[in-house]
Amino acid sequence: MASDLLPSWNSGPARDAIIDFVARVTREGGADFVRPAERIATFDNDGTLWCEQPLQAQFFFADARLKALAEKDPGMKERQPFKAFLEHDLKTIASLGKQGAFEAAFATHAGMTVDEFDAIAREWLATAVHPKLGRPFTRCAYQPQIELLAYLRAHGFKTFIVSGGGIDLMRAFAEEVYGIPNEQVIGSSLKTRFEVRDGRVEMLKLSELGSFDDREVKTQNIALHIGRRPILAFGNSDGDLAMLRYAKSGKGASLALLLHHDDAEREFAYDREFRLSPLVDALDHAADYGIDVVSMKRDWKSVFVP
Amino acid sequence: MASDLLPSWNSGPARDAIIDFVARVTREGGADFVRPAERIATFDNDGTLWCEQPLQAQFFFADARLKALAEKDPGMKERQPFKAFLEHDLKTIASLGKQGAFEAAFATHAGMTVDEFDAIAREWLATAVHPKLGRPFTRCAYQPQIELLAYLRAHGFKTFIVSGGGIDLMRAFAEEVYGIPNEQVIGSSLKTRFEVRDGRVEMLKLSELGSFDDREVKTQNIALHIGRRPILAFGNSDGDLAMLRYAKSGKGASLALLLHHDDAEREFAYDREFRLSPLVDALDHAADYGIDVVSMKRDWKSVFVP
Repeated sequence: MASDLLPSWNSGPARDAIIDFVARVTREGGADFVRPAERIATFDNDGTLWCEQPLQAQFFFADARLKALAEKDPGMKERQPFKAFLEHDLKTIASLGKQGAFEAAFATHAGMTVDEFDAIAREWLATAVHPKLGRPFTRCAYQPQIELLAYLRAHGFKTFIVSGGGIDLMRAFAEEVYGIPNEQVIGSSLKTRFEVRDGRVEMLKLSELGSFDDREVKTQNIALHIGRRPILAFGNSDGDLAMLRYAKSGKGASLALLLHHDDAEREFAYDREFRLSPLVDALDHAADYGIDVVSMKRDWKSVFVP
Repeated sequence: MASDLLPSWNSGPARDAIIDFVARVTREGGADFVRPAERIATFDNDGTLWCEQPLQAQFFFADARLKALAEKDPGMKERQPFKAFLEHDLKTIASLGKQGAFEAAFATHAGMTVDEFDAIAREWLATAVHPKLGRPFTRCAYQPQIELLAYLRAHGFKTFIVSGGGIDLMRAFAEEVYGIPNEQVIGSSLKTRFEVRDGRVEMLKLSELGSFDDREVKTQNIALHIGRRPILAFGNSDGDLAMLRYAKSGKGASLALLLHHDDAEREFAYDREFRLSPLVDALDHAADYGIDVVSMKRDWKSVFVP
C-alpha cells in the first residue's frame, strides 16, 4: 500500500508527484508508458543526495590531501588558495567562485594514478568525520533519497549521479552508499594520461580539467555519457537548472524535482546566499519550468541515514 | 555442457581461453574470483563486432548525409574531402588518416540536435545495404560476438563498446543488435551545445570534436565513462592496443583478445595494409603483451548473424 512506499517521505504533494509519475510511466499500455531502457533518472549529489554544508565534501578531502602534500612542500601552506583550504577560510574559498574553488581542490589530485586516487579516497572516507554533523561523510547521505533511488530502480529506472563533484571521489562511495555503479556516476573530471610504469599501463591524473560538470555542462555530459534525455531529474541549486529543464523538455511524461534546504533544525536552511552553489533562478522560476519543489522541512520525515 | 556454449565458435584455443577465463573469475571462493561490479568487458566495434570493410559504416552514413546536404549546397560535391566520400575514392579518404577521415565524416552531423540525429541514423540503418555484402549494415554484425556478449552478460559481466566510431551512430543500433544500452556505448563524439528552441531544451551537435576515441584515448575514455579497469578487452587493430594492454595490466585475472581478419572466403583478409585502421604492432607483439589472437578462419564456425 502507498504508505509503505518511501517511508521517510511525508504524505504530501512531493511524495504524491513521485508516486503518481512512477505509476504512470510504468503502466503498460498506458498513455505515459516508458520502456525500461528509457527510464533514466539523474541526481545531483552535493546538496541533493548528501549534505553540502558548510562546504562540499570535496573541500574537506582536498584539505586532507593538502596536509599530506605540505609534508613534502611546506611552502604550500602559505600559498593561496591552499592556505584558505587549510584554514577553512570560507570567504576566500567562496571568492574563487564555484568552478575556481573546485578546480583548486581537484589540483590536489594531479600526479597520481586513478587506482592510487581510489585507494586514498576510500581511506579518507572510512575515517573522516563531518565537521558540523559529527558523523562520517558517507552517513551524511539523505535517507529519503536512498529510498527514492531504490524505489526508482525497483520500477525499472536506471539511476545516475550528475554532479559538479569530482567523478573519482564519488565513485569511491556511490556504489556502497547509493547503490549506483561507477559507470552511472558523472562528475567533474581531470584529464588523464596513459602511462606505462614497470611494464604496466596506468592512467595518470593530470592537472588539466576535463570538464566542470555544472549548469549546461551537465546536459552536455548527459548527452555524452548516457545518450538519452532523462525523464526524471533531481537537483538543489541553479547548477542543476539546465538538467531539470532538459528532463522537462522531453516529449513524454517527465518529473523535475528541486530540494529546498529550509530545515535549520535538522540540517541547514539556505538558498540564494550559499555562494559556492546558490539557489535563485531555479527556485524563483520553478513553476514556469514545471519543476516540483521538495521542502526538506515539510516533505521529509527523517533526513540522514540512520 | 561445453559444446552448448558459444555455438558459433569452433573448439580450440580461443574458445577455451574465453570459457576458462569466465569460469575462473566467476568461481566464488576461487583465487581469481571477481565480483560482478568489476566484471567489465570492453569491445571495439568496427572490425570487432561488425564488418569494417571496405570502409567503416560511418563513411557510408556520411555519404548519405552528404547527398542530403548537397541538395541545399551543390558546391559541396566538388569540395574535398566530401568529393572523395561521394565518389567512394578510398585512396583520398585513406590519405586523410584515420582521425582526419572520421572527423570529415562527423562534420556532416553538425548543426542538428541529438534527437534529430538519432532519428536520421535509425532511418538510414533501417534501409541502407552494405555495398559488398549486400545485406543491411546491422546484419553485418558477427554472430560469434553476439553470442560472446550474451555469454558474458549471463555470467554477470557488463559489456561496453569502446570504439573510434561516432557514439551517436552506434547508439542507434547497439541496443537492438548487441544488447548494449546507450550508456554502455563509448565512441568518438562531437561537442554539443545547450539550446532552447520554442521553450524546449535541445542538445545541438557542433562541428568541434569532443574526443577521437582511438588508441590511448580509449583508455582515457574508459577511465572517464566506466571508472574501472576492464578485465576483458576485445579489439582488432592497433587502435585497440592501448585498451588491450590496460586490461592486461590489472592486478587480477584478465583476458585480451585480438580478432585477426584472415578469412577472405567468408569475410575479408587484411591487417597491416588497411590504412584506415591498420593491425601491425598489436599482432607482432601479441605474445609479449599476453594478448590471445582469434583467427576468424580457424575460430569462428559462422561469421555473420543469420
